[in-house]
Amino acid sequence: MYSVTAHLPLDHVGIAVHSLEGTARLFELMAGEACSPPETLEAQGVRVAFAGSLELLEPLGPDTTVGRFLQRRGQALHHVAFRTVDIEAELARLEAAGLTLIDPVPRSGARGHRVAFVHPSSTGGVLIELVQHPREPLHK
Amino acid sequence: MYSVTAHLPLDHVGIAVHSLEGTARLFELMAGEACSPPETLEAQGVRVAFAGSLELLEPLGPDTTVGRFLQRRGQALHHVAFRTVDIEAELARLEAAGLTLIDPVPRSGARGHRVAFVHPSSTGGVLIELVQHPREPLHK
Repeated sequence: MYSVTAHLPLDHVGIAVHSLEGTARLFELMAGEACSPPETLEAQGVRVAFAGSLELLEPLGPDTTVGRFLQRRGQALHHVAFRTVDIEAELARLEAAGLTLIDPVPRSGARGHRVAFVHPSSTGGVLIELVQHPREPLHK
Repeated sequence: MYSVTAHLPLDHVGIAVHSLEGTARLFELMAGEACSPPETLEAQGVRVAFAGSLELLEPLGPDTTVGRFLQRRGQALHHVAFRTVDIEAELARLEAAGLTLIDPVPRSGARGHRVAFVHPSSTGGVLIELVQHPREPLHK
Protein backbone atom coordinates (compact mmCIF):
# COMPACT_ATOMS: atom_id res chain seq x y z
CA MET A 1 0.00 0.00 0.00
CA TYR A 2 1.18 3.47 -0.82
CA SER A 3 2.39 5.52 2.13
CA VAL A 4 2.33 9.32 2.03
CA THR A 5 5.51 9.37 4.08
CA ALA A 6 7.35 7.38 1.42
CA HIS A 7 10.22 8.95 -0.48
CA LEU A 8 9.02 11.32 -3.19
CA PRO A 9 11.26 11.05 -6.26
CA LEU A 10 12.23 14.12 -8.25
CA ASP A 11 9.99 14.61 -11.26
CA HIS A 12 11.69 17.59 -12.87
CA VAL A 13 13.44 20.89 -12.21
CA GLY A 14 11.98 24.10 -13.64
CA ILE A 15 14.33 26.67 -15.18
CA ALA A 16 13.19 30.19 -16.06
CA VAL A 17 14.56 31.19 -19.48
CA HIS A 18 14.16 34.26 -21.67
CA SER A 19 13.48 32.15 -24.76
CA LEU A 20 12.74 28.45 -25.31
CA GLU A 21 14.17 28.54 -28.80
CA GLY A 22 17.28 30.42 -27.63
CA THR A 23 18.14 27.94 -24.85
CA ALA A 24 16.74 24.61 -26.07
CA ARG A 25 19.98 23.42 -27.65
CA LEU A 26 21.98 24.20 -24.50
CA PHE A 27 19.68 22.28 -22.18
CA GLU A 28 19.28 19.43 -24.67
CA LEU A 29 23.03 19.15 -24.50
CA MET A 30 22.97 19.10 -20.68
CA ALA A 31 20.13 16.62 -20.36
CA GLY A 32 21.27 14.50 -23.29
CA GLU A 33 17.74 14.51 -24.68
CA ALA A 34 15.77 16.39 -27.34
CA CYS A 35 13.27 19.02 -26.19
CA SER A 36 9.58 18.20 -26.28
CA PRO A 37 7.37 20.39 -28.50
CA PRO A 38 6.59 23.69 -26.70
CA GLU A 39 3.28 23.85 -24.86
CA THR A 40 1.52 27.08 -23.87
CA LEU A 41 -0.08 27.27 -20.42
CA GLU A 42 -2.11 30.49 -20.65
CA ALA A 43 -3.34 30.35 -17.05
CA GLN A 44 0.25 30.21 -15.77
CA GLY A 45 1.55 32.76 -18.26
CA VAL A 46 4.25 30.45 -19.65
CA ARG A 47 5.38 28.44 -22.64
CA VAL A 48 7.17 25.29 -21.54
CA ALA A 49 9.27 22.55 -23.09
CA PHE A 50 10.99 19.59 -21.47
CA ALA A 51 14.57 18.49 -22.10
CA GLY A 52 14.65 15.25 -20.16
CA SER A 53 14.07 16.18 -16.52
CA LEU A 54 14.51 19.92 -17.14
CA GLU A 55 11.39 22.03 -17.70
CA LEU A 56 12.21 25.26 -19.51
CA LEU A 57 9.76 28.07 -18.72
CA GLU A 58 9.49 31.09 -20.99
CA PRO A 59 7.17 33.86 -19.76
CA LEU A 60 4.33 34.96 -22.04
CA GLY A 61 5.06 38.53 -20.93
CA PRO A 62 6.95 40.60 -18.35
CA ASP A 63 3.94 40.85 -16.03
CA THR A 64 3.71 37.11 -15.29
CA THR A 65 5.14 35.12 -12.38
CA VAL A 66 8.04 33.83 -14.45
CA GLY A 67 8.48 37.21 -16.17
CA ARG A 68 8.94 38.90 -12.79
CA PHE A 69 11.26 36.12 -11.60
CA LEU A 70 13.48 36.66 -14.67
CA GLN A 71 13.61 40.42 -14.10
CA ARG A 72 14.62 39.85 -10.48
CA ARG A 73 17.07 36.97 -10.83
CA GLY A 74 17.85 36.42 -14.50
CA GLN A 75 17.83 32.88 -15.90
CA ALA A 76 17.93 30.56 -12.91
CA LEU A 77 16.49 27.44 -11.31
CA HIS A 78 12.83 28.26 -10.69
CA HIS A 79 11.22 25.31 -8.91
CA VAL A 80 11.67 21.67 -8.03
CA ALA A 81 8.92 19.12 -8.65
CA PHE A 82 8.31 15.87 -6.82
CA ARG A 83 6.34 13.02 -8.30
CA THR A 84 3.53 11.48 -6.27
CA VAL A 85 0.90 8.84 -6.94
CA ASP A 86 -1.61 10.51 -4.60
CA ILE A 87 -1.41 14.29 -4.88
CA GLU A 88 -4.44 14.97 -2.65
CA ALA A 89 -2.94 12.90 0.17
CA GLU A 90 0.42 14.68 -0.16
CA LEU A 91 -1.23 18.12 -0.14
CA ALA A 92 -3.20 17.17 2.97
CA ARG A 93 0.01 15.94 4.63
CA LEU A 94 1.89 19.17 3.85
CA GLU A 95 -0.99 21.42 4.86
CA ALA A 96 -1.41 19.53 8.13
CA ALA A 97 2.29 20.15 8.77
CA GLY A 98 1.71 23.90 8.47
CA LEU A 99 2.87 24.59 4.92
CA THR A 100 1.00 27.12 2.76
CA LEU A 101 -0.45 25.70 -0.43
CA ILE A 102 -0.69 27.87 -3.55
CA ASP A 103 -3.01 25.23 -4.99
CA PRO A 104 -5.09 23.54 -2.28
CA VAL A 105 -6.78 21.69 -5.15
CA PRO A 106 -4.61 20.21 -7.93
CA ARG A 107 -4.91 21.82 -11.34
CA SER A 108 -3.98 20.84 -14.87
CA GLY A 109 -0.30 21.34 -15.68
CA ALA A 110 2.03 20.59 -18.56
CA ARG A 111 1.80 17.23 -20.35
CA GLY A 112 -1.69 16.63 -18.95
CA HIS A 113 -0.37 16.06 -15.43
CA ARG A 114 -2.16 17.10 -12.26
CA VAL A 115 0.00 19.59 -10.38
CA ALA A 116 -0.02 21.79 -7.26
CA PHE A 117 2.48 24.31 -5.90
CA VAL A 118 3.52 24.96 -2.31
CA HIS A 119 4.21 28.59 -1.40
CA PRO A 120 7.94 29.40 -1.03
CA SER A 121 7.18 31.55 2.03
CA SER A 122 6.56 28.28 3.88
CA THR A 123 9.39 26.24 2.34
CA GLY A 124 12.41 28.35 3.13
CA GLY A 125 12.23 30.31 -0.13
CA VAL A 126 12.08 27.30 -2.46
CA LEU A 127 9.14 26.91 -4.84
CA ILE A 128 7.98 23.27 -4.69
CA GLU A 129 5.61 21.52 -7.09
CA LEU A 130 3.87 18.20 -6.70
CA VAL A 131 3.07 16.26 -9.87
CA GLN A 132 0.82 13.29 -10.46
CA HIS A 133 1.09 11.62 -13.83
CA PRO A 134 -2.02 10.20 -15.48
CA ARG A 135 -2.72 6.60 -14.55
CA GLU A 136 -0.89 4.07 -16.64
CA PRO A 137 -3.37 1.88 -18.49
CA LEU A 138 -3.60 -1.64 -17.06
CA HIS A 139 -3.47 -3.16 -20.53
CA LYS A 140 -1.73 -1.70 -23.53
CA MET B 1 26.88 -0.16 -24.15
CA TYR B 2 26.60 3.14 -22.38
CA SER B 3 26.15 6.12 -24.68
CA VAL B 4 27.20 9.60 -23.61
CA THR B 5 24.24 11.02 -25.50
CA ALA B 6 21.78 8.95 -23.45
CA HIS B 7 19.36 10.62 -21.09
CA LEU B 8 21.05 11.75 -17.87
CA PRO B 9 18.70 11.26 -14.90
CA LEU B 10 18.53 13.82 -12.12
CA ASP B 11 20.70 12.86 -9.17
CA HIS B 12 19.79 15.64 -6.75
CA VAL B 13 18.98 19.33 -6.43
CA GLY B 14 21.19 21.52 -4.24
CA ILE B 15 19.55 24.10 -1.96
CA ALA B 16 21.55 26.81 -0.21
CA VAL B 17 20.38 27.18 3.41
CA HIS B 18 21.49 29.30 6.34
CA SER B 19 21.48 26.33 8.70
CA LEU B 20 21.20 22.57 8.20
CA GLU B 21 19.70 22.09 11.64
CA GLY B 22 17.25 24.94 11.13
CA THR B 23 15.87 23.65 7.82
CA ALA B 24 16.29 19.86 8.05
CA ARG B 25 12.79 19.19 9.35
CA LEU B 26 11.18 21.29 6.62
CA PHE B 27 12.98 19.53 3.78
CA GLU B 28 12.54 16.11 5.38
CA LEU B 29 8.85 16.89 5.28
CA MET B 30 9.02 17.86 1.59
CA ALA B 31 11.11 14.90 0.50
CA GLY B 32 9.36 12.44 2.78
CA GLU B 33 12.72 11.15 4.00
CA ALA B 34 15.01 11.66 6.98
CA CYS B 35 18.17 13.74 6.49
CA SER B 36 21.50 11.98 6.21
CA PRO B 37 24.14 12.82 8.85
CA PRO B 38 25.81 16.16 7.99
CA GLU B 39 29.12 15.95 6.15
CA THR B 40 31.70 18.74 6.00
CA LEU B 41 33.42 19.43 2.67
CA GLU B 42 36.21 21.81 3.70
CA ALA B 43 37.49 22.33 0.15
CA GLN B 44 34.03 23.50 -0.99
CA GLY B 45 33.37 25.53 2.16
CA VAL B 46 30.10 23.74 2.98
CA ARG B 47 28.40 21.36 5.35
CA VAL B 48 25.86 19.21 3.51
CA ALA B 49 23.06 16.81 4.32
CA PHE B 50 20.69 14.95 2.03
CA ALA B 51 16.92 14.70 2.48
CA GLY B 52 16.05 12.26 -0.26
CA SER B 53 17.00 13.96 -3.53
CA LEU B 54 17.53 17.36 -1.91
CA GLU B 55 21.07 18.35 -0.93
CA LEU B 56 21.07 21.05 1.73
CA LEU B 57 24.20 23.23 1.63
CA GLU B 58 25.18 25.33 4.64
CA PRO B 59 28.19 27.61 4.11
CA LEU B 60 31.15 27.27 6.50
CA GLY B 61 31.44 31.08 6.41
CA PRO B 62 30.23 34.18 4.57
CA ASP B 63 33.28 34.25 2.27
CA THR B 64 32.54 30.94 0.55
CA THR B 65 30.74 30.25 -2.73
CA VAL B 66 27.53 29.26 -0.97
CA GLY B 67 27.93 32.05 1.62
CA ARG B 68 28.05 34.65 -1.16
CA PHE B 69 25.13 33.00 -2.96
CA LEU B 70 23.03 33.26 0.22
CA GLN B 71 23.90 36.92 0.68
CA ARG B 72 22.91 37.65 -2.91
CA ARG B 73 19.76 35.53 -3.26
CA GLY B 74 18.76 34.22 0.14
CA GLN B 75 17.80 30.57 0.55
CA ALA B 76 17.19 29.25 -2.95
CA LEU B 77 17.82 26.43 -5.40
CA HIS B 78 21.59 26.40 -5.90
CA HIS B 79 22.41 23.73 -8.48
CA VAL B 80 21.05 20.72 -10.30
CA ALA B 81 23.01 17.48 -10.50
CA PHE B 82 22.82 14.80 -13.16
CA ARG B 83 23.91 11.25 -12.59
CA THR B 84 26.27 9.66 -15.05
CA VAL B 85 28.08 6.34 -15.22
CA ASP B 86 31.05 7.84 -17.11
CA ILE B 87 31.84 11.31 -15.80
CA GLU B 88 35.02 11.75 -17.88
CA ALA B 89 33.12 11.00 -21.11
CA GLU B 90 30.34 13.44 -20.18
CA LEU B 91 32.86 16.18 -19.34
CA ALA B 92 34.61 15.62 -22.66
CA ARG B 93 31.26 15.79 -24.47
CA LEU B 94 30.26 19.06 -22.77
CA GLU B 95 33.69 20.66 -23.25
CA ALA B 96 33.70 19.68 -26.92
CA ALA B 97 30.32 21.40 -27.23
CA GLY B 98 31.86 24.63 -25.96
CA LEU B 99 30.79 24.62 -22.30
CA THR B 100 33.18 25.87 -19.62
CA LEU B 101 34.10 23.30 -16.98
CA ILE B 102 34.76 24.40 -13.40
CA ASP B 103 36.26 20.96 -12.81
CA PRO B 104 37.91 19.59 -15.96
CA VAL B 105 38.96 16.65 -13.76
CA PRO B 106 36.38 15.11 -11.40
CA ARG B 107 36.95 15.59 -7.69
CA SER B 108 35.68 13.99 -4.54
CA GLY B 109 32.23 15.20 -3.48
CA ALA B 110 29.69 14.34 -0.83
CA ARG B 111 28.96 10.68 -0.04
CA GLY B 112 32.23 9.58 -1.66
CA HIS B 113 30.91 10.36 -5.15
CA ARG B 114 33.03 11.71 -7.98
CA VAL B 115 31.68 15.10 -9.05
CA ALA B 116 32.39 17.96 -11.45
CA PHE B 117 30.70 21.32 -11.98
CA VAL B 118 29.99 23.17 -15.22
CA HIS B 119 30.31 26.96 -15.09
CA PRO B 120 26.96 28.79 -15.10
CA SER B 121 28.37 31.41 -17.48
CA SER B 122 28.16 28.72 -20.16
CA THR B 123 24.85 27.15 -19.12
CA GLY B 124 22.51 30.11 -19.20
CA GLY B 125 23.09 31.00 -15.53
CA VAL B 126 22.36 27.55 -14.11
CA LEU B 127 25.01 25.76 -12.05
CA ILE B 128 25.17 22.13 -13.21
CA GLU B 129 26.90 19.24 -11.47
CA LEU B 130 27.72 15.80 -12.81
CA VAL B 131 27.86 12.96 -10.31
CA GLN B 132 29.23 9.46 -10.63
CA HIS B 133 28.40 7.07 -7.82
CA PRO B 134 31.04 4.58 -6.73
CA ARG B 135 31.06 1.08 -8.19
CA GLU B 136 28.81 2.12 -11.04
CA PRO B 137 29.44 -0.29 -13.91
CA LEU B 138 30.57 1.41 -17.11
CA HIS B 139 28.71 -1.07 -19.30
CA LYS B 140 25.16 -2.07 -18.55
